[in-house]
Amino acid sequence: MKDVVIGFLGCGNVGGGVWKLLEGFQKELAHRDNLSIRVKRVLVRDVNKARTCAVPRELLTTDVNDVINDPEISIVVEFMGGEQPATEYMIRALRAGKTVVTANKVAVALNWHRLQAAAQEHGVGLYYEASVCGAIPIIDTLNHSLQANRIQYLMGIINGTTNYILSRMYEKGEDYSAVLEDAKRLGLAEPNPASDVEGYDAAYKLSIMSSLAFHARVPFSKVYVEGITRVTAMDIACGKEMGYVLKLLAIAKRDGDNIEVRVHPTFLPGSHPLAQVNGSFNAVYLKGHACQEMMLQGRGAGDMPTASAVVGDIIHASVADVHVHPTFANTPDADAILTFEDNWTSRYFVRISAVDKPGVLAKVAGWFAKENVSIATMMQKGSVEEGRVPLIFITHEASEKAMQAALAAFDPQICTVDSMIRVEK
Amino acid sequence: MKDVVIGFLGCGNVGGGVWKLLEGFQKELAHRDNLSIRVKRVLVRDVNKARTCAVPRELLTTDVNDVINDPEISIVVEFMGGEQPATEYMIRALRAGKTVVTANKVAVALNWHRLQAAAQEHGVGLYYEASVCGAIPIIDTLNHSLQANRIQYLMGIINGTTNYILSRMYEKGEDYSAVLEDAKRLGLAEPNPASDVEGYDAAYKLSIMSSLAFHARVPFSKVYVEGITRVTAMDIACGKEMGYVLKLLAIAKRDGDNIEVRVHPTFLPGSHPLAQVNGSFNAVYLKGHACQEMMLQGRGAGDMPTASAVVGDIIHASVADVHVHPTFANTPDADAILTFEDNWTSRYFVRISAVDKPGVLAKVAGWFAKENVSIATMMQKGSVEEGRVPLIFITHEASEKAMQAALAAFDPQICTVDSMIRVEK
Repeated sequence: MKDVVIGFLGCGNVGGGVWKLLEGFQKELAHRDNLSIRVKRVLVRDVNKARTCAVPRELLTTDVNDVINDPEISIVVEFMGGEQPATEYMIRALRAGKTVVTANKVAVALNWHRLQAAAQEHGVGLYYEASVCGAIPIIDTLNHSLQANRIQYLMGIINGTTNYILSRMYEKGEDYSAVLEDAKRLGLAEPNPASDVEGYDAAYKLSIMSSLAFHARVPFSKVYVEGITRVTAMDIACGKEMGYVLKLLAIAKRDGDNIEVRVHPTFLPGSHPLAQVNGSFNAVYLKGHACQEMMLQGRGAGDMPTASAVVGDIIHASVADVHVHPTFANTPDADAILTFEDNWTSRYFVRISAVDKPGVLAKVAGWFAKENVSIATMMQKGSVEEGRVPLIFITHEASEKAMQAALAAFDPQICTVDSMIRVEK
Repeated sequence: MKDVVIGFLGCGNVGGGVWKLLEGFQKELAHRDNLSIRVKRVLVRDVNKARTCAVPRELLTTDVNDVINDPEISIVVEFMGGEQPATEYMIRALRAGKTVVTANKVAVALNWHRLQAAAQEHGVGLYYEASVCGAIPIIDTLNHSLQANRIQYLMGIINGTTNYILSRMYEKGEDYSAVLEDAKRLGLAEPNPASDVEGYDAAYKLSIMSSLAFHARVPFSKVYVEGITRVTAMDIACGKEMGYVLKLLAIAKRDGDNIEVRVHPTFLPGSHPLAQVNGSFNAVYLKGHACQEMMLQGRGAGDMPTASAVVGDIIHASVADVHVHPTFANTPDADAILTFEDNWTSRYFVRISAVDKPGVLAKVAGWFAKENVSIATMMQKGSVEEGRVPLIFITHEASEKAMQAALAAFDPQICTVDSMIRVEK
């Protein structure tokens, strides 16, 4: 039996979940993996705060050195969240020869090079399955199972809060702000939901996933981010009528040395596997040159699903004698030059309010045509109000720059652009 | 750079796919994993046979010893299929100190203990991701990512041929035999499709998956197997009308020390994630006590998807310094006693032809009630023919034994049972 002594940095919901999971799983750990895992110290802000998990008082400390300098502790598990001080604590732990397991997407996305360099320099492991999509084994799948693939693209529903909101708007025709308030009340959205609804949470995760998928460091700063705050019930209803479902998608595509990474509301055909992923479920759909299409779906958040990934990593780290780290193609010594593309192509859903006069449609079509944007479908929705009528267009594939240029040329005297939403197939 | 020399046992479609994948992937292997992988010898039946892949003639041999006794070869990759001689060759390779990577579900399902014992005894690895569901990383997910879970159940669509047939029957109302002939013509069913349509292919895979999920050796012989050969267009149409989709499901459930494993046609509600998995896609839906619900979906067959899994294993085996093997709870030295349950509970779809007379329904309901099988829904379908009318029942949860007893008691003078299909939620 191998005795593994670990320390926690932080003990909020996920930390509590990990404590609970480990507590009830010792028999299985012994039998399956010949392991005994013991939590020795737990860093908290306030030792007197009431906690949902039964961590004994004497394990708690407010001094990080009690965790990262304890010679008996071999694995430090970080649940603090946020970039700092989590990153510095993890680097100190790695330098002290301890393997780090983290659920912290922000720290990994922003400081991956520093964390990995510290791990490699000191011959220890850095594990972060829980940082992306909770229990879904997307990190391990990209790092190991799909290692023999050139991943061409991945698209994910990787934020449960926004998927819950959009699913309800789709099913019940409700307004964004009403559903958001309800989600807050139900604990499905944070009191300050900005990071979720503005797309940043998804962008951190996309930076991590796409780096592993493309074996290229994809910085968070290169991710185009657009949230769901401007999405309207009207857009969702129009899309629904045309057979589309609106999702906040995280999209990463690689074509040769070009990489595009973006998070934005996206219409998907109702028959797409991601279109069926509802409520607080997460899913990642990807295509590799050998594996072809694949989708992983599951619980992307929650104490126990996230604890499932954390404890999986702890077991993995305890059993592994060699810690394997990914190689990126755009580190200084790499053999590939990668560029990040902000002029991607897409199809587009455009909703406008146009003056109800003959010849207007020809004008609008002309503005699109001037930029080589070609129309696939047009639908008039509802009736004339204040002399204007809502028109919906879905375009064929066009470049983002051309689309933006076309919309900028629209004459507000003739029509105004109410929304522009990208469409994937 | 680590040079890895490997040998093939067999070189059919999957072997050819692996050759092709390795050939075009050397640059990535070098960069990502610091590996160079070279195929040195390839065992074939006939060195003169024309091949789709460009294996040089001088690598081919008809003598297995050229592969398993070559001291330079460290990994033997087996693509022969079937129990023998594949199993004996793999055991000889393991005993010769070579790690084995296999795509052979039959050999693994039937001789796992012997293979694993040989691998452990000689300190080498045994990898079999490709033996179940092609590119889908279900083995690695069960073995590693979900290690911190008690898996409660898994349900899979793990045979592409039958899923293609059932999907077409569902969508177009076609008859089983017509679709089967068409599938043969299209290369989607074997000339002799027995192993697929009778459920054995799925049962081998279920034996492997459930063994890993439950950390208990689930022998192939314990799997209840019923294929799709008796499925009718009429049953599928009736189910469809009631909101159900018919799939050949592989189901494994664990409740305490009881395990049930079964492969049979199953109705699923149209809203179930597995109900949306169509054509030749495979998917596994599972639930763990920590991870909750999860689904992995992808290409379960085909040269390149299977090669994706094989080469993933070769890379994994080349990089790993320690080869980890699963522990089963029902080996002689284990701490758990497991029983295999053949009296599971389910809901049931029953279609009968009943004499069109007053009082018949009361009689049928009485036969169900006598065995404590309670009816959830009843539907009359179509009109009276030759004095008999088709009736469909869907029951509440009932035990398999009770259901069988109820059906056995039906009086053929009053009604005949045309079909009985299990229903999952």
